[in-house]
Amino acid sequence: MMRTRPLKVALLGCGVVGSEVARIMTTQAADLAARIGAPVELAGVAVRRPDRVREGIAPELVTTDATALVKRGDLDVVVEVIGGIEPARTLITTAFAHGASVVSANKALIAQDGAALYAAAEEHGKDLYYEAAVAGAIPLIRPLRESLAGDKVNRVLGIVNGTTNFILDKMDSTGAGYQEALDEATALGYAEADPTADVEGFDAAAKAAILAGIAFHTRVRLDDVHREGMTEVTASDFASAREMGCTIKLLAICERAADGGSVTARVHPAMIPLTHPLASVRGAYNAVFVESEAAGQLMFYGPGAGGAPTASAVLGDLVAVCRNRLAGTTGPGESAYAALPVSPMGEVVTRYHISLDVADKPGVLAQVATVFAEHGVSIDTVRQQGKDGEASLVVVTHRASDAALGGTVDALRKLDTVRGVASIMRVEGE
Amino acid sequence: MMRTRPLKVALLGCGVVGSEVARIMTTQAADLAARIGAPVELAGVAVRRPDRVREGIAPELVTTDATALVKRGDLDVVVEVIGGIEPARTLITTAFAHGASVVSANKALIAQDGAALYAAAEEHGKDLYYEAAVAGAIPLIRPLRESLAGDKVNRVLGIVNGTTNFILDKMDSTGAGYQEALDEATALGYAEADPTADVEGFDAAAKAAILAGIAFHTRVRLDDVHREGMTEVTASDFASAREMGCTIKLLAICERAADGGSVTARVHPAMIPLTHPLASVRGAYNAVFVESEAAGQLMFYGPGAGGAPTASAVLGDLVAVCRNRLAGTTGPGESAYAALPVSPMGEVVTRYHISLDVADKPGVLAQVATVFAEHGVSIDTVRQQGKDGEASLVVVTHRASDAALGGTVDALRKLDTVRGVASIMRVEGE
Repeated sequence: MMRTRPLKVALLGCGVVGSEVARIMTTQAADLAARIGAPVELAGVAVRRPDRVREGIAPELVTTDATALVKRGDLDVVVEVIGGIEPARTLITTAFAHGASVVSANKALIAQDGAALYAAAEEHGKDLYYEAAVAGAIPLIRPLRESLAGDKVNRVLGIVNGTTNFILDKMDSTGAGYQEALDEATALGYAEADPTADVEGFDAAAKAAILAGIAFHTRVRLDDVHREGMTEVTASDFASAREMGCTIKLLAICERAADGGSVTARVHPAMIPLTHPLASVRGAYNAVFVESEAAGQLMFYGPGAGGAPTASAVLGDLVAVCRNRLAGTTGPGESAYAALPVSPMGEVVTRYHISLDVADKPGVLAQVATVFAEHGVSIDTVRQQGKDGEASLVVVTHRASDAALGGTVDALRKLDTVRGVASIMRVEGE
Repeated sequence: MMRTRPLKVALLGCGVVGSEVARIMTTQAADLAARIGAPVELAGVAVRRPDRVREGIAPELVTTDATALVKRGDLDVVVEVIGGIEPARTLITTAFAHGASVVSANKALIAQDGAALYAAAEEHGKDLYYEAAVAGAIPLIRPLRESLAGDKVNRVLGIVNGTTNFILDKMDSTGAGYQEALDEATALGYAEADPTADVEGFDAAAKAAILAGIAFHTRVRLDDVHREGMTEVTASDFASAREMGCTIKLLAICERAADGGSVTARVHPAMIPLTHPLASVRGAYNAVFVESEAAGQLMFYGPGAGGAPTASAVLGDLVAVCRNRLAGTTGPGESAYAALPVSPMGEVVTRYHISLDVADKPGVLAQVATVFAEHGVSIDTVRQQGKDGEASLVVVTHRASDAALGGTVDALRKLDTVRGVASIMRVEGE
């Protein structure tokens, strides 16, 4: 049942990802046609710099006028791989208005304006797919939206930024400090010249907002995500983690509250046991751990970035959207019916590893323990180490709210016998 | 846009999986309705023993006449969780003929008769979904069929049987022998009273046939899958594996030949490096590693069996099929357009670990090495150990065809100086 009139696809952006999408559309044309039920044709490519040589793309397809391209009116699918908020947002809504469905790899835009884009897609009866926006090639959006549609997800815990995982893995395996590991990541092309979006957790926070929204069938805005970067993780933190049988990862964590009435989303470095499947995720790989009521614990692992892996996710969406168009239907739209409130970070409950520099004299431990007790934070273990009149106390707590831990730390800082709080790190994954 | 007339679902079988499906359909009814766009109603449950108490299922829904149930004509979806070939096959085709789509968890039936069932579904314009048939709760069929639809899968390497993984993990971690580990698996309910289907690899072979067909867009019959069980794996094999930095897993391996013109599918125990993500899959968990051209290496991990996990996969399919019915469409059907031949086991190329008992005298190694060379099998490493006039030789080869290795072993057995071939094991995952 092969249709002969091709489906027309426009590509917005032709950088690392876009050029791979165009290449695979050509080299795998016969396979794509067989899987869709009709051939797909590259109908136009919008770029900023038309003078750059683009191997395998007919020059007459290339244009700098992206707006005119998406307004053509004969497009079936627009693939947006420009990134950023504008002009991507306007181009996508214009594409919907002019009859095209959209496949996007734009995490920042989906995280910030996903609801408005879904609304525009629905208004015009079109599809919005964005598997590539989270964890690159790893099938994650579709499994959450479709495979687990009959289940209740309670938790998503993931390594969703390859740059920071590369840096942390390097620090763990070589004992390097943050700057040294970052320099290596930059030299190898894993980190950008300005690594802020990665190392400060902005990239991971956008992905956490998208994942939380899909997992819990609610809307989670980027501002709802608590975000801490990993620039202050030290070699000494890794030494502490090892003593705990842990390593340190930058995690995106989305949780449903125990009473089911609210959700939280956060990004921060955390200790995680070496026995946890996420602990062995090396280099620039991504992995996302999903806990649901019926399925139990699932993990999805793979390359989180890169031209070809991201193109694989884009093309999977392209096949689905093309099939939907041939069938005259659309796939699942936004599912935000649960409309759950997002609780602030203070209500997040987890465990903590706290290193204190204290005076090396009797009674300090009793004082410190009293402060924890007064704030309702129960201590699991304490380790005391003396050295030259100074001493350090390492406290690992049972589960407590972030607000209670914050109050505890404020009070500890006021103790005469506490010289400083050397580090506070959450302990996850148990 | 909620439709009020409910979609009618019939359940064939109400054992461990079926009762969980019914339970979740009740407890998560509001969520399922919101995700589908219409409520779903349990319209009938066919069982063999109607006298058993079935908590939460209205007695008037229960029938022993499965045929009459699927012929009702008002059903939207039939969920088949009986297992086995008949009566499941006839009930499914009857369901299609009477207007229902089908969700099945039946690996044996899909592996044996998938093509005929797909044809019946297509003839009547209905859906056939079976995510639960392979690797329980792990989303795998949908990612392969849909997420990777724009990519080219070259290899699927998986632990798809929880019972055997539990036994092998136990042997590895405790040094237990096969029988002792099997006894523990039986006592804990991981192995059935007759464990043949699991330990002889029949269950994994059915899953390998399904995975190969979907991954390579071709038809792979159960008979096309080379199958070796794991009952002859010994504690001594695990010791050898550890010396290689490996462990032993029962693997299902589906590969596209290097020239792309054929595929192979096989199930057998194999050594796999401890650094490979599959090596750390513990207990009864399943995991499937997928290598594709653009996405690279992906892994999907989770519980491979059990009532609730399998029900999660069934319900995800149920939501998809119900959404398709509301939209008046169907999902992807069989994709076998590639029509690639399945090569016999002799053409499979991999590495081998061979232990030989040999006479402890000069020249034996030279003789053995000559036999390998004569059969075109290149040796990577040899380790020689003498003990009391006897000696053992452990040979690890480079990549060679199964046929060449078989010829080599036959010739080795004829050498006077070779007292016996203690073990032959494939080495995978590099």
